[in-house]
Amino acid sequence: MWHYDPPLRDMRFVIDEVLGAPDAWARMPAFDGLDADTAAEVLAQAGKFAAEVLAPLNGPGDLAGCAWHEGQVTTPPGYPAAYQDFVDGGWPALACDPDCGGQGLPQLLNAALYEMLAAANHGWTMYPGLLHGAYECLHAHASGELRERYLPKVTSGEWLSTMCLTEAHAGSDLGLLRTKAEPRADGSYAITGNKIFISGGEHDLTGNIVHLVLARLAGAPPGTKGLSLLLVPKILPDGTRNAVHCDSIEKKMGLKGSATCTMRFEAATGWLLGEPNRGLAAMFLMMNAARLHVGLQGLGHLEVSTQNALRHAAERAQSRAPRKPAGAPDADADPIVLHPAIRRTLWTLQARTEGGRVLAYWAAQALDEAAAHPDEGERRAANDRATLLTPVVKALLTELGHHGADDALGVWGGHGYIHEMGIEQIVRDSRIAMIYEGTNEIQAIDLLLRKVLPDGGVRLGQLLDWAGAQAEGATNAQRLRQGLQALRECADALVAGAAADPEWPYRAADDFLHALGEALLACAWARSEVAARHALAAGAPDAAFYEAKLQRTRFQADYLAGELPRYLAAVERSRAELPFLPVLG
Amino acid sequence: MWHYDPPLRDMRFVIDEVLGAPDAWARMPAFDGLDADTAAEVLAQAGKFAAEVLAPLNGPGDLAGCAWHEGQVTTPPGYPAAYQDFVDGGWPALACDPDCGGQGLPQLLNAALYEMLAAANHGWTMYPGLLHGAYECLHAHASGELRERYLPKVTSGEWLSTMCLTEAHAGSDLGLLRTKAEPRADGSYAITGNKIFISGGEHDLTGNIVHLVLARLAGAPPGTKGLSLLLVPKILPDGTRNAVHCDSIEKKMGLKGSATCTMRFEAATGWLLGEPNRGLAAMFLMMNAARLHVGLQGLGHLEVSTQNALRHAAERAQSRAPRKPAGAPDADADPIVLHPAIRRTLWTLQARTEGGRVLAYWAAQALDEAAAHPDEGERRAANDRATLLTPVVKALLTELGHHGADDALGVWGGHGYIHEMGIEQIVRDSRIAMIYEGTNEIQAIDLLLRKVLPDGGVRLGQLLDWAGAQAEGATNAQRLRQGLQALRECADALVAGAAADPEWPYRAADDFLHALGEALLACAWARSEVAARHALAAGAPDAAFYEAKLQRTRFQADYLAGELPRYLAAVERSRAELPFLPVLG
Repeated sequence: MWHYDPPLRDMRFVIDEVLGAPDAWARMPAFDGLDADTAAEVLAQAGKFAAEVLAPLNGPGDLAGCAWHEGQVTTPPGYPAAYQDFVDGGWPALACDPDCGGQGLPQLLNAALYEMLAAANHGWTMYPGLLHGAYECLHAHASGELRERYLPKVTSGEWLSTMCLTEAHAGSDLGLLRTKAEPRADGSYAITGNKIFISGGEHDLTGNIVHLVLARLAGAPPGTKGLSLLLVPKILPDGTRNAVHCDSIEKKMGLKGSATCTMRFEAATGWLLGEPNRGLAAMFLMMNAARLHVGLQGLGHLEVSTQNALRHAAERAQSRAPRKPAGAPDADADPIVLHPAIRRTLWTLQARTEGGRVLAYWAAQALDEAAAHPDEGERRAANDRATLLTPVVKALLTELGHHGADDALGVWGGHGYIHEMGIEQIVRDSRIAMIYEGTNEIQAIDLLLRKVLPDGGVRLGQLLDWAGAQAEGATNAQRLRQGLQALRECADALVAGAAADPEWPYRAADDFLHALGEALLACAWARSEVAARHALAAGAPDAAFYEAKLQRTRFQADYLAGELPRYLAAVERSRAELPFLPVLG
Repeated sequence: MWHYDPPLRDMRFVIDEVLGAPDAWARMPAFDGLDADTAAEVLAQAGKFAAEVLAPLNGPGDLAGCAWHEGQVTTPPGYPAAYQDFVDGGWPALACDPDCGGQGLPQLLNAALYEMLAAANHGWTMYPGLLHGAYECLHAHASGELRERYLPKVTSGEWLSTMCLTEAHAGSDLGLLRTKAEPRADGSYAITGNKIFISGGEHDLTGNIVHLVLARLAGAPPGTKGLSLLLVPKILPDGTRNAVHCDSIEKKMGLKGSATCTMRFEAATGWLLGEPNRGLAAMFLMMNAARLHVGLQGLGHLEVSTQNALRHAAERAQSRAPRKPAGAPDADADPIVLHPAIRRTLWTLQARTEGGRVLAYWAAQALDEAAAHPDEGERRAANDRATLLTPVVKALLTELGHHGADDALGVWGGHGYIHEMGIEQIVRDSRIAMIYEGTNEIQAIDLLLRKVLPDGGVRLGQLLDWAGAQAEGATNAQRLRQGLQALRECADALVAGAAADPEWPYRAADDFLHALGEALLACAWARSEVAARHALAAGAPDAAFYEAKLQRTRFQADYLAGELPRYLAAVERSRAELPFLPVLG
């Protein structure tokens, strides 16, 4: 039956051997004293929490859902207790500043933690999912009494937090927001407006909820340049209830254990965070980390779908396979893991999962180096890398997560359509990750239009150089370099073509992001191959693990290397005019 | 808000102008007197039923679901009354033999009817969905009293029917079935066994349910050659309840209005249909039609998703578009239908929907010609065509339906994840169509291993000749012929390569099916282009409709023509060895 087995062995391989993170930590004073074994122990404990506490609540939480009654929300059975365990374990503070009560561990380990939480129970993970972002906002912008009152409790997770952005008429386009904040004599503001799709806007997990609300001060300019960020608690410092109301929760495709709230602020009391009209900038501070975390949800969906599909395929027998391993018993029906179509699905899922993990962890490592590397040039280079990797990780991994879960469902055949098997829930839960924190189409535009074209492809070229260096020493390094070169030429063509047809990059953006993603995945596998060969040459004890890595490297090269040229060709195709739609009556 | 607008105009275009069906009917005595206007009137009435009676029950039926209580199943509110309307309208008998109470209309019109039913309410449509198959089984195999008692009521739909195949351990592999049938002295049989995933195994729509059960007679050979087909009614001829029990219904991803039943036969009384041990052959009689109907469900999902996404995109305004049609108003936010990423999604959905309709209706027309053409050679050629088209239509259109709905969901952004918008239900409902009636992987194996390779590609060559003739006169006929030739060479390579590596075709089957599907879709668009040009040249009144067709033809050629080479390259890639999976502990 469905369960979650934390992929600790592969995480350790990626962190220690592919990324060489322990060596990197040794060079960064902020991570002084952190070594591979300590990191592994942290992840083992995190995996135990995910597998033993969260995973068993996932299916039942989907069936029970959240209940709304007169403004109160009840989460599924077991959710509050699991959250208390999470806080007691110190998990919210893992990557927070030690000066504020945090443990000061790298974002990389926090990434591995959140991959496991989302894999085990994405619905539950929505509650603490925004905590780190709120911590970063408060850490950067709150001062004085506000900081003293809210930062420690958000760091520890004693109080949960929300991000109140979306309004019914304003989703991707925050410039249209209408919620208002009016100053009061005591320095607080009265916030009035309606917000929708607020994850954890109301729940029974913590005694207070700290809402971070985007609103418009009186007289602020229109558009995104007139938005300010305000802290609006559910319970006011004097212990009374603030005028913040949850009017309903949504009936959704998935994440039914997560309360998605319609919120009404009726002259609710709040305080400005950061400068007036700079709310979006304050929020964008945490955007790379937030988008990376959504990508990690996709990775978690892919991992949990893959491992369960593999177990099911090894157990389920149907029909004879056309070919069998030497010594396999003769039977009326063989395990479906032997059937070529199923084998191909499973190999693909494994290659995507493990390659995707390298890609996501590269981005997390870049965030750590951007923040904590002692050398300023390295910090800047790492920041550039994180900036380009982030939209790719967000869009590509959420897509691989959702589509991978959907493909995995097919391994169960008709049984996959039944709730108790577990996989159909992952298909439903995973869909939203392609949309929230900026839709995947917006990620693609962010990458190409805001990050590649404006500097004529310079930063992209640096990323590709870096990726090429990762592939050094791999069997097909030469072919990978050709692929990276083709990608460079594709970007050059877009730079050149955008002048004559400014809309072309918009039409090409999705395919360009996928092309870059495929190139990076190929480099991730090349780097994994080199690390696996190195371990085998050094006589590592678990040779089977490394041999399997080499087999998957070959699968990637044989079966998946066609993806990059496919997307490059699609970019080229999108030069063709795309007319406006004739909407027929 | 979500609604279903029957695509009558496009149906008429495909049936009359692309397929030239009215001329074909005039050559078949079975359809004597049927003309284009009569057919259009039938479809208009069917569309009215689908849009006005079924569509409003779709969302509420998903929320209400079915209820099981002590063996009884209650369907969602409105389902029984809608079914009574359906029977009163004579819809079940549309394409049945007039000698048995049917209306004798072509399968082609029945196909259009079922496309609309599935688009409006797939869950409800599961109940009558198996009726035509049961009719065909009884029509071909029931005689004497059995025929007299059951055929008229199944033809009229007064009694609904099931197909009881799957058992817990036997899904795709029916050879493993264990349900037993023991002869009794009176010529009846005692049927004992457990079946799962029985759609409509129990419900409150009709007074009796006619179960068609695959079971094994005592002493029958093992495997599929020992299966017999038995008719087992819920209510026996003397009015008493047969020993057929519904023990539970499944909690599923979608189709929640359709009761998926676990059935227990406890020495239930039944009668043999057809010859002993020939049960599978009896059922396979209706397989082409049944698989076509599943493909039509995919087409329905695609149509209803596309038209609703288009309406939503025309209404929802977010952000400024980078380019606008001349004369569009200047506003803070433009309708998202103007944004390139959304436009591309919508164009793709439309091209897939309308091309898919031609493909599906070609298959339906081939079934009609195979059954009713006066010339034996034409009947055989049409049958060969139907045989090859069927697995392509089933697999390709269910995939386009599910993935198309999933892509369409993105047009709503976060709102797409909410039940009341309608689209997330289509994503859930559509997934099962890729699995039942033979999984799509089995369709691919059926196509390549059973239908293309055994005759060395002769029948495939005839289909490709026919497809090439369809494309005659189109703008890019030359390029399409090259594509068809490449596909021929791909099949030749598979024929040749299968000798040295018999597993290769199994690894290549999915990509081969997609390659053939893409080639056929391209020909479908070429044929549509020719028909549209013809209409414009003849001065047809609604020029805008035909101009839009030409625009979509160009979109297909510009943006989607890369799909065929992509799948051909993937077939070539799959020559690479695909090792057995190292299942790591």
